[in-house]
Amino acid sequence: MMAARLTPLAQSLPASVPFVGPEAAERARGAGFTARLGANENVFGPSPKAIAAMETAAGDIWKYADPESHDLVTALAAHHGVAPANVMVGEGIDGLLGYLVRLYVGPGDAVVTSEGAYPTFNYHVAGYGGTLHKVPYRGDHEDPEALLTKAAEVGAKLVYLANPDNPMGTWHAGSVIEDMVARLPEGSLLVLDEAYVEMAPEGAVPRIAIDHPGVLRMRTFSKAYGMAGARVGYAIGAAEQIEAFHKVRNHFGMNRAAQAGALAALGDQAYLADVLSRIAAAREEIARIAAENGLSALPSATNFVTVDCGRDGDFARAVLAGLVARGIFVRMPFVAPQDRAIRISCGTAADLAAFAEALPSALAETAGA
Amino acid sequence: MMAARLTPLAQSLPASVPFVGPEAAERARGAGFTARLGANENVFGPSPKAIAAMETAAGDIWKYADPESHDLVTALAAHHGVAPANVMVGEGIDGLLGYLVRLYVGPGDAVVTSEGAYPTFNYHVAGYGGTLHKVPYRGDHEDPEALLTKAAEVGAKLVYLANPDNPMGTWHAGSVIEDMVARLPEGSLLVLDEAYVEMAPEGAVPRIAIDHPGVLRMRTFSKAYGMAGARVGYAIGAAEQIEAFHKVRNHFGMNRAAQAGALAALGDQAYLADVLSRIAAAREEIARIAAENGLSALPSATNFVTVDCGRDGDFARAVLAGLVARGIFVRMPFVAPQDRAIRISCGTAADLAAFAEALPSALAETAGA
Repeated sequence: MMAARLTPLAQSLPASVPFVGPEAAERARGAGFTARLGANENVFGPSPKAIAAMETAAGDIWKYADPESHDLVTALAAHHGVAPANVMVGEGIDGLLGYLVRLYVGPGDAVVTSEGAYPTFNYHVAGYGGTLHKVPYRGDHEDPEALLTKAAEVGAKLVYLANPDNPMGTWHAGSVIEDMVARLPEGSLLVLDEAYVEMAPEGAVPRIAIDHPGVLRMRTFSKAYGMAGARVGYAIGAAEQIEAFHKVRNHFGMNRAAQAGALAALGDQAYLADVLSRIAAAREEIARIAAENGLSALPSATNFVTVDCGRDGDFARAVLAGLVARGIFVRMPFVAPQDRAIRISCGTAADLAAFAEALPSALAETAGA
Repeated sequence: MMAARLTPLAQSLPASVPFVGPEAAERARGAGFTARLGANENVFGPSPKAIAAMETAAGDIWKYADPESHDLVTALAAHHGVAPANVMVGEGIDGLLGYLVRLYVGPGDAVVTSEGAYPTFNYHVAGYGGTLHKVPYRGDHEDPEALLTKAAEVGAKLVYLANPDNPMGTWHAGSVIEDMVARLPEGSLLVLDEAYVEMAPEGAVPRIAIDHPGVLRMRTFSKAYGMAGARVGYAIGAAEQIEAFHKVRNHFGMNRAAQAGALAALGDQAYLADVLSRIAAAREEIARIAAENGLSALPSATNFVTVDCGRDGDFARAVLAGLVARGIFVRMPFVAPQDRAIRISCGTAADLAAFAEALPSALAETAGA
């Protein structure tokens, strides 16, 4: 019998994965990791109130979630001083990016991002047949000027920029983003990924009119709020852009306990403030460990620190492999010249002690190879 | 400034919703429901072991889920006596149907289903630009002969059938499905939605070779396992069909606690057996209440009972409105002639007592109108 028929686009796609999970790496090496510092998860976890809300909701899990995420949307709108019509809750930023790309990008449509920026966005663009145009970073920052120039050149439907940036941890002042928004080409939508923004310094958050039709901001409970495994993200933007998600989203796609947890997490800003101070301390400790080993840490506006290994990508990849072999799960930028660095998520004191213990021998082994 | 540009397909789609959630109905009426019997949720809930697993996992929610769902896939494969390569775990059947339609259906591609069958499948087909061809039910059953004839006529890429059926609760013997599979047109993939199959009588499960390229079976933890709010479904089929999901799926889309809960639920088959007996008793009670009110209940292979109100769709809609006004959340089939019925999910004794109390006056009010 003839096999069923994939679409030509689906036929052309590889079976791929933007990231291999740490569990797969643990299975491959036959042992667990001592420290899980590779996926920019927030080891400090969510508010105890969020955990309690999820525990309570576990007993109610026989009910589908509210497809409107009404309570969470309402709370987020109040938190940001916008209307509920300006907020769309979805299955993590990854899920929302998938919907967004589906809405805007068809075969051959142009999309602009930076070489080495978030691969899951690229995966979605390729998955809908879009054509990715990439511009290089500039001094370890995504380059708004280059993105704007390329977007105008190719007539980009979407322009992706993360502020703060992943994988470098760098950031632009909000005014730089505001200037970028003002100069977007006609018909381009800026996808402003602010997954890490709660951890950024004052002034990194641009002021953008909520009804601006050219920008959609992406936020998440996965990073500062410590709920990566829950899958709760949200988009903020003009009602017209938010409304479009209803054309394609999986209405009953949210986990009910995750909704309850996110609502409780949002309500505990005191806990968030405490976590931010612990993240700041961990960033300093990672920088100290780097310096102790003759390496330099990039300033970070995120819950990870990108550590320049001082040589080329092959060297950094070998250092990373040495850390992984020593039970320290870390990742690194994919492309040159950023791949001279490794990326360490903020961990507990015990996590960072394990990192500090493993790094010298991983470096020595690599330098001596 | 010009608004960003949706694709022509997205531009053509309405902002729609396959089902309005009960929470939205509660907000609209300004009061909660006494009994939640409209969404075929399983009020008996999941195994206490599943609840405990989710409570435990709440403390670990800072970690992303294993994108391979390795432990759950392995357990499901063992449970069904197939290989892990024959199983794909996803964000509920709804999520998996979305991926499946995306993989197979492009603009103008033909898809066959039954008039009044699962609207979320139709939503996905429309959302990818497919052309839906619908055949009528036959005697309150989906009609395999009509589906096969239409599939051959239009060259269907996908043919959807639910066994047991939703919204009627009826079922075909496994041998009927086996015969249908044997006679599928070349190049058609049967999407066999078995969301309710654990609750069906012996003999309703077809024997289909796991490497058959023409069938993909959909299962879920939302119904018999009582975890609708967790979003855990899975597909079973040929490795080639399963592999295709990796081209488009959201790898980090699963909720980590949901994975743990599903694994524990699967492991507690004794609890499942107990729930099945409670569901069977509730079906009998709903049939008794129907008969007491002069209505007839259709035999059911699911956790709901479709009750024939004995007149036309307008009458049944009025009865349903009367129940909703009395705090009983129920739904009903969308199209004639099935819309002469209302659909009652299996509830607790208290739920069904509330239904029994509300039904006579809802009926009397409607009959007297």
